[in-house]
Order: sequence, then structure tokens, then C-alpha cells
Amino acid sequence: MLILGIDPGLATIGFGVVSTDGIRVASVEYGVLETPAKVRTPQRLMMIYNGIERLIGHYEPDAIAVEELFFSRNVTTAISVGEARGVILVAAAQHTSNLYEYTPMQIKQAVTGYGKADKKQVQLMVKTLLNLKDIPKPDDAADALAVAICHAYSYRMSGEFKIQ
Amino acid sequence: MLILGIDPGLATIGFGVVSTDGIRVASVEYGVLETPAKVRTPQRLMMIYNGIERLIGHYEPDAIAVEELFFSRNVTTAISVGEARGVILVAAAQHTSNLYEYTPMQIKQAVTGYGKADKKQVQLMVKTLLNLKDIPKPDDAADALAVAICHAYSYRMSGEFKIQ
Repeated sequence: MLILGIDPGLATIGFGVVSTDGIRVASVEYGVLETPAKVRTPQRLMMIYNGIERLIGHYEPDAIAVEELFFSRNVTTAISVGEARGVILVAAAQHTSNLYEYTPMQIKQAVTGYGKADKKQVQLMVKTLLNLKDIPKPDDAADALAVAICHAYSYRMSGEFKIQ
Repeated sequence: MLILGIDPGLATIGFGVVSTDGIRVASVEYGVLETPAKVRTPQRLMMIYNGIERLIGHYEPDAIAVEELFFSRNVTTAISVGEARGVILVAAAQHTSNLYEYTPMQIKQAVTGYGKADKKQVQLMVKTLLNLKDIPKPDDAADALAVAICHAYSYRMSGEFKIQ
């Protein structure tokens, strides 16, 4: 089973593809999509839409997991990241009904066992769980892998895999 | 020239189509798209995407104008309206490069001549300018017509119409 995890953003969108057999989780690919700040927002959103479509077309994931947004401060940033996230959700929903959303706390809990783990702890666990030599870079890619791992673990817990 | 104005939202999206010859502005159609609160966000965003596509396919507007968002308080609302707005911008940008964004202040200024006009003043001017018997209902539809009128006037001012 292939899972595409996405860490939403307007300038940088992290993605991580993991495969899982219900027990182990392995990294298939990870990276970021980027949109230039000098381009108008509708065009940046189109780039995101097309980029997500390309990723889905290329990897044909069985499920897509997207991080939920929580902001406490900057409303303007919240709107623009919200715009990008809406576009990502639509591009994903057009391809699969196996679309899931996880809060940052759920992701931390799933990956480290502790819902208030810091960024570094999450990244270290991503490296360990995926048996990688280094922490995946950039951060947005590591975050996206964490979302994908979170779904792999949640899905396993829900009993939809037959664990032997 | 046909202009589609859009007032973005997650639950209710206002739309207004106006025609203009560079001098007069006339109402062609207006109304709202609605998404039910009980449906999951990705599905609601899909409904919005498909709804905007249908509107564009039906009216084939020469230009699309979308209101910009300004929130000062509720960040959670800002994110979800942002998500809807991102979807609207992508659906619009896929059909035309004649896509414009206007701030609430620009819209008020264009429609009433006063950037701090209240909602009621804007609605009354929409009714007057479009020569309608009543103020268009619901409010989101009237707001969308105001966005479309704003573009018609801005466009005229920019000299792209030959005014005789």
C-alpha cells in the first residue's frame, strides 16, 4: 500500500510517499513543490494544483493524507496557506476518496508516541522509522513523511490491515 | 462583455454575472452555491470547484473577479474560507487569465464612491446601478454583483473600453 503525505503551504509544499505492508513502513520518495513569491496567487495555486496532480499521477497512491492547519497568530498567513490547502484537497479528492486529514498533534502522537513532541523529535523518528541515513531535508519533506507515517499507523490500528 | 463576480465562502458562495458595454452595467444572473455543513471539507471543496466550473461553462464570462478576504478575528474561519477561495481561484484560473481580485475597500469605493460604505449602502447601489426592482437576495449574491460591477468600472477606468 502506497501513501502520499502532504504538508500544505503556498510557497513550499512538502510531499512524502511511503509504502507499508501493515507492519513496516518504507520511504519511496520525498521532496517539495515550490512556487515563486513573485508570481500572482492564482498562478501559484495553479502550480500547486498541477504539481499535486502530477505527483498523484506518477505514484498512484492508495491513500492521501494531508496535515490540518492550526494557526494562532497571523490571519493573513492563515488565509494564504488555507487557499493552498483547499487546492491540494480538491486535487486529491478528484483522484481518490481515500483522503485523510490529521492534526499536528495526531501526527506527533503517531510518529513519536507523544502529542507534544517537538519538531526535532518528529524528524528523528521519521529518520529511524524509515531507516534513513539522515533526517530528510528540507523540513517540509520530513513533515510530509510524518503525515504519511501517521496514516500508515492509524490505518493499521483501525484493523483494516490483516496483521499476522 | 460578461463579468462573473464571486464572493467566496465555504458554506455559501455568491455569484453575480453582469454585462457591460463600457458605459452601462446590466444584471444577467445572480445567486449562490451552497455546501452542506455535514459533508466533509474535501467534498465541500469539490462541490465548490464543480459549481464554479459549471458557472463558467454556462456563462463563458470574459473576466472573473473574486473578492479578497480580510479577517481580523477568527483564524479557524479564515482558514476554511481561505480553502474555499483557493479552490475558486484555481477553477477560475484554469479557464481564463482575465482573473482579478479586489479588496472589500476597492469594491465599496467602486460601487458607492466611498471605501468605507456599509453593507446596506453597497446593496442599495447595486440595486440602483443594475436597475433592479429590489435589493438582490441573498446578501452573498448582492456582494458578488458588487464585485462584478467593481471590475466593470475598474476596467472602464483603465481605458480598455473605447468610450464614445
